[in-house]
Amino acid sequence: MHNFPKVVNIMEVGPRDGLQNEDFVDTENKISFISDLSLTGLSRIEVTAFVNPKWVPSLADQIEVVRGIKKISGVKYSALVPNIKGYELASKSGIDEIALVISASNSHNKKNINKTTEQALLQYKQIATKAQADNIPFRVYISCAFGCPYEGNISIKSVSEIAKKFIDLGAYQVSISDTIGVGNPIQTFNIIKELTKIIFIDKLALHMHDTRGLALSNILVALDLGVSSFDSAIGGLGGCPYAPGASGNVSTEDLVYMLHSIGIQTGIDLDNLCNVSKKLQKLLGHKFPSKVLSCY
Amino acid sequence: MHNFPKVVNIMEVGPRDGLQNEDFVDTENKISFISDLSLTGLSRIEVTAFVNPKWVPSLADQIEVVRGIKKISGVKYSALVPNIKGYELASKSGIDEIALVISASNSHNKKNINKTTEQALLQYKQIATKAQADNIPFRVYISCAFGCPYEGNISIKSVSEIAKKFIDLGAYQVSISDTIGVGNPIQTFNIIKELTKIIFIDKLALHMHDTRGLALSNILVALDLGVSSFDSAIGGLGGCPYAPGASGNVSTEDLVYMLHSIGIQTGIDLDNLCNVSKKLQKLLGHKFPSKVLSCY
Repeated sequence: MHNFPKVVNIMEVGPRDGLQNEDFVDTENKISFISDLSLTGLSRIEVTAFVNPKWVPSLADQIEVVRGIKKISGVKYSALVPNIKGYELASKSGIDEIALVISASNSHNKKNINKTTEQALLQYKQIATKAQADNIPFRVYISCAFGCPYEGNISIKSVSEIAKKFIDLGAYQVSISDTIGVGNPIQTFNIIKELTKIIFIDKLALHMHDTRGLALSNILVALDLGVSSFDSAIGGLGGCPYAPGASGNVSTEDLVYMLHSIGIQTGIDLDNLCNVSKKLQKLLGHKFPSKVLSCY
Repeated sequence: MHNFPKVVNIMEVGPRDGLQNEDFVDTENKISFISDLSLTGLSRIEVTAFVNPKWVPSLADQIEVVRGIKKISGVKYSALVPNIKGYELASKSGIDEIALVISASNSHNKKNINKTTEQALLQYKQIATKAQADNIPFRVYISCAFGCPYEGNISIKSVSEIAKKFIDLGAYQVSISDTIGVGNPIQTFNIIKELTKIIFIDKLALHMHDTRGLALSNILVALDLGVSSFDSAIGGLGGCPYAPGASGNVSTEDLVYMLHSIGIQTGIDLDNLCNVSKKLQKLLGHKFPSKVLSCY
């Protein structure tokens, strides 16, 4: 309770992690949504993924989306990249930074990116080299770090080994992801304690899904250990098409509300954010899980 | 993270705090629901309130409900009592224990129980004397302890003064209630720290509503300070008819899941509890907010 950071940086993943699980939203509406988000005080937004439209049809317009954004100064726009082809497209699109995704579970890597962990590491090494040459910063999601739908428990060692490899490859951040929302506060404490033995804490982010209602409690534990970077999705949208049982990300509104309530700055205007969320909720036509949003 | 109690005791308030906000449920169904709850491992259930049916029509069958319960050994059945008339009815009904309700906010007392705080204290002193003579244990909700819809901020001093008075009057427990779900982790820390200066920690319970998604985070802070008694409602049902903006209690399923995930025992069978919740959800005909329930 006494080691909280003064400022937290949020990566808004709604346009990617949220919309990938929804029916296709018109490109124009996506661009307008991202423009609205850009004016809330968010400094990082993951806007799309350079994935095969055959597998993720909701994000088939990734190039048009990136090219259509009216970039706001002070906001970094990111895109998820699962392979070299995706990297080539992303790097030409004008995106500010990219996010790679690898799972701490070999089985999940096979299902999610159709590669073993070793194969994934090999291709990401190539992408990391290219990204550095192209001067494109990159971060890495380490999926299923708290548990895997196929393998069950995941050792902290397998998470920390992958994390260390990517930091050594030049990632500006690793985002430790509870893809299926099975993490608990003690596990969060233990994972962060172990990771910070080998990685500076400012290189760590948490990416929590709220499947069992524990996302904010886990984030509170991480804050108390000094973690100051978190991913969240507006409204609490999200999931993972290749992780059965995955449900929404922690809601940005709820996260921002909690942070502000305990005196942590985010630079985000919560009223404005909720207005953007309400507009998207109307567009998508279903109620979002965010609790704070329902108070607006 | 290291001061967690080994065992937590839960007061299930769903049949009262939950059902008072729903359309009238048939008495037979209520009794069946309470019987089901009694077999989940819960040791305390608040089954109804002895309030004027004119104001809370959903609980108009309080006497029939209490008389109809097939009591299970090891389970204590409680009822809320807002005034002397309610006490007279409750004490004759065969209830095991009672709960009184007073707000830390004078304005909320006037709206909720139609008395000033002073008037409420006076009548509860009489009830406390009667209950002790009748050998009926009692606990006390201190409503709006984290904030009031009419008065805004509530001083910790006003909460602790009321708490101390009731412990001195013989209450076995005071349940510090975030009626409108505005509490945050630092506030929870501060309230408990202050209260435990004048009251033994085993006399304290927390009663959190999840209006802004912070109930479990606040409970985590309380656990770390050694609090071992919490109120919750199955499914996350609940609210307060005289507190605008109040929404559901923390869900018993989510609370039990969190407690078990960090190695704290409750004696409750979560699978069984979720089955009871699903049955009630079907009966009430709307989706419950519990996250864990939606994984079942």
